[in-house]
Amino acid sequence: MEINLAKKAAGEKAAEYVESGMNIGLGTGSTVYYTILKLGEQVKSGMKLKAIATSLATEKLAKECGIPIVDFSATQELDLTIDGADEVDGKWNLIKGGGGALMREKIVAAASREFIVVVDASKKVDYLGKFPLPVEVIPFGWEVTLKHIKALCRTAYLRTKGAEIFVTDNNNYIVDMPIKSIISPKQLELQLREIPGVAVTGLFIGMASKVIVGETDGKVVEL
Amino acid sequence: MEINLAKKAAGEKAAEYVESGMNIGLGTGSTVYYTILKLGEQVKSGMKLKAIATSLATEKLAKECGIPIVDFSATQELDLTIDGADEVDGKWNLIKGGGGALMREKIVAAASREFIVVVDASKKVDYLGKFPLPVEVIPFGWEVTLKHIKALCRTAYLRTKGAEIFVTDNNNYIVDMPIKSIISPKQLELQLREIPGVAVTGLFIGMASKVIVGETDGKVVEL
Repeated sequence: MEINLAKKAAGEKAAEYVESGMNIGLGTGSTVYYTILKLGEQVKSGMKLKAIATSLATEKLAKECGIPIVDFSATQELDLTIDGADEVDGKWNLIKGGGGALMREKIVAAASREFIVVVDASKKVDYLGKFPLPVEVIPFGWEVTLKHIKALCRTAYLRTKGAEIFVTDNNNYIVDMPIKSIISPKQLELQLREIPGVAVTGLFIGMASKVIVGETDGKVVEL
Repeated sequence: MEINLAKKAAGEKAAEYVESGMNIGLGTGSTVYYTILKLGEQVKSGMKLKAIATSLATEKLAKECGIPIVDFSATQELDLTIDGADEVDGKWNLIKGGGGALMREKIVAAASREFIVVVDASKKVDYLGKFPLPVEVIPFGWEVTLKHIKALCRTAYLRTKGAEIFVTDNNNYIVDMPIKSIISPKQLELQLREIPGVAVTGLFIGMASKVIVGETDGKVVEL
């Protein structure tokens, strides 16, 4: 894999906030990838960590790096979660779920006292929505759930993978909403939650406690 | 099975609202059981129906009665859904999900132009909540989702079936909330939907368009 300097800078910076003895949440994606590699080095140097992974891919990578993985039966409160995002607006609201792990990512973030978001500068936007908003839906009646979502965004569509319907780690489906510009994320979140069959949305509102942005020259800016 | 006159009266009365040519939703439970038997007779007499079932049990019963079962790929709009409830308050707000079918029941009800609720008189309450409120949760991180729900109701607990965790038709879990008295169903619904990991609640607010109550003497009252 070619090294992405911006993602590497942001991802590694976040690892500096992790202290020995912490229970942490580990996100999924190409930026937090560098966080996990860095944390693996710190664990090899003696740091004590327990981590909950937001995806099977992250669990596998973390284990390879020597980071002990636990689940929520071991702890229901995390000190810190580090995760990427598909978009970040000026109020630190996020769109997540491009990779389909939005449910687990939201559950882990909500279980954490602190939630650090790591992104490269291309993810910063004035208004969320250029990235299609992922919405996880229950398979039963997905056609009617999609119809309700289309009342909010005519161009919404069921996510596929090749010729098959894309299936999440929770055995649900994803509807993507290419809204272009979300004026009120909070209002849209409430409207989507009104729809039976919507399990979770990719809008993360007021959850981030820090945003670390990596630039292409390898510098980082902490918001 | 011993015939329950109150349930039979309410269930059969609802069948009178079904007209030939309709696409209908069929709920689950001991009152709508009588609706399905009655509709089976009407179909045998020539009534044309297509039905979407809210559970595998209802699908099986309906098929035995000769009612054609379809799914949401065939139609995304239903003329009428008939379903039971665990509690009905004076504003026709409902608690549903005692049997665990709340997700499918809510999706089907929301796809219907009309939603008729059939209950016996024992289900009428001034305030919802004597019946423990079912909340469907995603298995991943259920421990932390339960912790968030307990912040609203200390005595909430994961539903079990014998020694096993109860699993819904959507492969999710159920948390039951024995709240006793729900002063503001709408507010509670919003608070629960705020919790990542909550897929759907058993609160059906403002969805019923008619309530048919059966009395023990076999009379019915339509609200």
